[in-house]
Order: sequence, then C-alpha cells, then structure tokens
Amino acid sequence: MDLATYKKHLLDYLAKEIKVVEPRNLYEPIKYILEIGGKRLRPVLCLQSCDLFGSDYKNALSAGLAIEIFHNFTLLHDDIMDAADIRRGKKTVHKKWNENTGILSGDAMLILAYKYLENYDSDIYKELMLNFNKTALEVCEGQQYDIDFETRIDVTLPEYFKMITFKTAVLLACSLKIGAIIAKSSDMDKDAIYNFGLHLGIAFQLQDDFLDTFGNQKTFGKRIGGDIIENKKTFLYLKLLEVISESDKKILDKWFSTEQDSESKIKEITALYVKYRIPNVVKSEIKKYSDLAISDLHKTSLSSDAKMAFEQLGKSLNLRSV
Amino acid sequence: MDLATYKKHLLDYLAKEIKVVEPRNLYEPIKYILEIGGKRLRPVLCLQSCDLFGSDYKNALSAGLAIEIFHNFTLLHDDIMDAADIRRGKKTVHKKWNENTGILSGDAMLILAYKYLENYDSDIYKELMLNFNKTALEVCEGQQYDIDFETRIDVTLPEYFKMITFKTAVLLACSLKIGAIIAKSSDMDKDAIYNFGLHLGIAFQLQDDFLDTFGNQKTFGKRIGGDIIENKKTFLYLKLLEVISESDKKILDKWFSTEQDSESKIKEITALYVKYRIPNVVKSEIKKYSDLAISDLHKTSLSSDAKMAFEQLGKSLNLRSV
Repeated sequence: MDLATYKKHLLDYLAKEIKVVEPRNLYEPIKYILEIGGKRLRPVLCLQSCDLFGSDYKNALSAGLAIEIFHNFTLLHDDIMDAADIRRGKKTVHKKWNENTGILSGDAMLILAYKYLENYDSDIYKELMLNFNKTALEVCEGQQYDIDFETRIDVTLPEYFKMITFKTAVLLACSLKIGAIIAKSSDMDKDAIYNFGLHLGIAFQLQDDFLDTFGNQKTFGKRIGGDIIENKKTFLYLKLLEVISESDKKILDKWFSTEQDSESKIKEITALYVKYRIPNVVKSEIKKYSDLAISDLHKTSLSSDAKMAFEQLGKSLNLRSV
Repeated sequence: MDLATYKKHLLDYLAKEIKVVEPRNLYEPIKYILEIGGKRLRPVLCLQSCDLFGSDYKNALSAGLAIEIFHNFTLLHDDIMDAADIRRGKKTVHKKWNENTGILSGDAMLILAYKYLENYDSDIYKELMLNFNKTALEVCEGQQYDIDFETRIDVTLPEYFKMITFKTAVLLACSLKIGAIIAKSSDMDKDAIYNFGLHLGIAFQLQDDFLDTFGNQKTFGKRIGGDIIENKKTFLYLKLLEVISESDKKILDKWFSTEQDSESKIKEITALYVKYRIPNVVKSEIKKYSDLAISDLHKTSLSSDAKMAFEQLGKSLNLRSV
C-alpha cells in the first residue's frame, strides 16, 4: 500500500470520527484544526508500521488518529505561544476564535488523544500508554528547550540535538513503534523501528535547518532565511561558531544582536555559511543520521520488501531537495 | 484515620515526588502551583475511599497525586483564561512567569497526571484510565459551558446543573471511585460512591453559590457579592427568574446589563433574593442533594463506621455555614 492510500484511510476515519458535538465552542475549533490539512505523516507512519509488521492497518487507525490529534494539539498551543496568525494558509485557532478558546480546545484535544487509545485491549493498552506518555512529555520538554534557546547565547550542539530529538523526532519514532506494538511485534523490532524513526526525524530536522537557508523558495513553503532573521540557534549556526574566525565572529554577533529583518542580514550570514563550507557539514550530518536510520531498519525482522518500503519513505522525507 | 492525616500523607508524597528537573523553566512552575496549598480535597477523598473500602491508603497515593496534578492543571489554565492575578494569596503562574509558561507547564501537568497513573497494574490500569479520561474531558466541557454562560441570557436550570456537575462534581466523584477501584471494590460499590461524590459535589457548589451572596465575609474567603458583580448565572439567579414579577425583573435586568461594581448593585439584588425567599429555595435544594448523597452511601457495602466517616466528610463540606 502506498503512502497516499494510508493517508486516505486515515482521513476517511478522521472525517467519520471527528464531529462537532456540544459544547460546540469547544469542539468546532478541534474539527477545524484537524481538517485544515497537513501531510498526516505521523499517523501514516503508524498505519504503515502496523501493516508492514504484519497486522491489518485498520487496527492502527485509532492510534493513528490519537497521534494526529496530539500533534495538532501541540501545533494549536505552539501557535498561541508564537503568536502565529497563519497555519497552512488558514487562520490559526486563536486568531479565528480567541486565545482562551485555543487553550481550552487544545486541552480537550490532548484528552481526546488519550480517549482514542482506549480502543485497544488490556494486553497492549498499558504498553501503548507508557510509550505515548513518555513521548508526550518529551515533546513538551522539547518545546521548552526551544523557547529557552531563544534567549540563551551558550547553546551547545548536544543541547541542540536533544531539543530537536524531543521536539520533532520522538513523535515520529513513537508513531512507528505504536504501529509495531499493535502488530504485536517483538521487542527487538519495536526498538529498532523506534530508532529508525528517531534518526530519520533528526535527519529530517537537519534538512529543515538546511533548506531554511539554502532551499528553493518555491518548494520549501516557508520564507528562505526565516531562521536567520529570527536568530535561531540552528545546526548551521552552531557549526559555524565552531570554526569561525574572530573577525567574522564580530560580523555574525552584530547581526545576531538585533532581530532586524533585512535581505542584507540573510545575504551576509548565508555568505558566512558558504565561506566556512557549512552546507557540506550539514549534508554529511544528514547522511550520517540517514545511514543510522537504514542500519536500524536492517536490525528488524522485516522482509526485504517492507524494508524497501520504509527506505522509500525515508527518501521521500530526506535528501529530496538537498 | 482523619482527613488531616490523609492530607499529611499526600503532602509528604507530593514533596518527595515533585522535584524541579531539566528543563527547569517547565518544571519550576509545576512545583510552585502544586505547593501553594489548597484543601487537597480530591486526593484526600481518593485516599479515604481506598482506605474505607478495605485497602491500604498508600496504594492510592499515586492516583491521588495524579488527580491533584490534574486539578491544579485546570486551575493554572483557568487562571490564564480568567486573567486572574492571585490564587490562594500568591501570584498565579502566568503572572509570576508569563502566559506561554502557564500554557506549556499546564500541558506538561496534564501529561504528568497520566504518568502517575502508570503506577497501577494492568488488571486495574485500564479501568482507572477510562474513568480518568471521561472525567477529564467532562471537566473541560464544564469549563466551556461556564464560559458560554457568561454571554448567554437564556441559560436554563438543567443547563446550570450540567455545568456545575461537569465543572466541579465529576472530579470529586471520580476521586472517590478511583479509590474504590484501587481497593478492588464491587461495581455496585464503585457506582454508589461515585454518585455519592457527584451529589455531594452538586450540594457543595450550590452552597458556594449561596455563600457568595449570603455568606460571612470572614469565613467565606472570597468577596461577598462577587457573583452578583460578575452577573453570574448562579442557581440563585436562575431560581429568581422563575418567580420574579415583571416590574422587579426590570430592576434585575438593569443591573445585569452592566458589569458595574457597586455596593448598591449587591444590596438591591440581594434584597430581591430575600424578597422572593430564594435563600430557602437554595437551602432546600442543598438538602435534596445532601440527602441523595447519603442515600447513595447506604447503597454501598461499607461498614457503619465507614459510612459514618463519609457522612462526616459530607458534613464538613456542606451545610457548615448555611
């Protein structure tokens, strides 16, 4: 089954399940944010994992929806925290309604995600919950690290990796593992597919850092140079700090001391990245994590065809436009 | 064991469990709000229920803490929504830190509550989760109804009862039921103690409505007349609407059309309540729900002593200052 088919099944299930009930002011924003689109990557991973580990993908629909609801809960609350007006070309919930609605509907979504996990029998229910709880708390911690980094000037590379692991990678990893748990896979398979997702997620985030500066405006979706304008402590920036000369560091610090939104800022910092060959450093780091993901995959008992399917998925996420 | 002793054990457990770990900016507000006090009524109910249904109260400590964390999560987010500066004489989290911290630390608390339920074995774990999830979602719905009522002029008494049931009573009821589940009580006992908590919670909220207008300033804690100033659709107000004359209704509507903060407003509306004997109506409604609670209690298999202990608890909550 291809990724588009999993996505279609997930969307059909979502449309059937997510109705506006009373109190409408609580549930309308939930339906709204769940229907404004997105790649549905996490539930698709969950369905695919369940399928490739030998169970019917339908068994993973509830868990996939739980994960998608959880993911959108984090987006909803993050958008309030970032004062973001637009998400996927539409008004964010707190803009369309108000902040209080955003807070409360988000809270209800987190609980709804837990309710969708109720659809699993006691023999795997607790295992699902342990994994989901751990991941959910890590995602909150990742968001807190990301906020903390905005005002810190001493962020280290290990701290950066911890932040992107928690904020992005663990939920991808957990989605895959939950699919494997539902398919009653072995512990070794569950751990290996989790690590596959974790490494893929890190590679994915590194690629996102790269494309934010060096991507193609047409295919990237977001504004090129956004991270530079916001003085984000990305992998590119932290790697540059390791090798930059004292005189160039002064130029970098000057730009990073203001939140100035200018094309010259983007141009000059991009030039510094190029001068110190940071694009090559990022590409090799992405390759390192992609290779780790592939080696995790080969630790599973999956068939060659199933491994190939996951590799294809990896390729569709990473290295595409690098 | 008396209520103060349960409370002491809960507080000892809380102090042992709730530490500030990294990221500190996420966990410091959590420790702060959990330590600023309160009656700890819900976890005490949970411990007492577990104890009186024949198990060691210690078995209920994790669940009691989960419930207390959940309750404080709702207070934290409600304080943001209400723009409240002070809670129990201390700065609210979003005032001491900021709104974003309040949102994210609150989210983490909800997940932490779920994590404390992990300490139960698979044989009762799912039952605990089903009850907790149902209650948690109802509490969110109750908060939404409460918000909706602020701007509605056609709130009915059944809607009012649904709102206070969800916003206040279900968590008290669930706390008792969870104690009974941990003590492996019969289904009949679990249902009866749940209903006891539900009816007690409703009586408790009705009493709160009453005391807000007719209480003693010294013992009530909050300002007398607060609900009147805020045009709250309390039980008193909705009952008054049923019996008020057309000419008095005009006086009432005039006051309720503004958010004016004046002693004359409190005085005139209180006079209307007295004129239409609303205090007697409330007292008899409180008695009705207290009697229902007692009759629920007698449906349990508890010993006379245990029933007596719960009756004492009921009395300590209700009818005290009415």
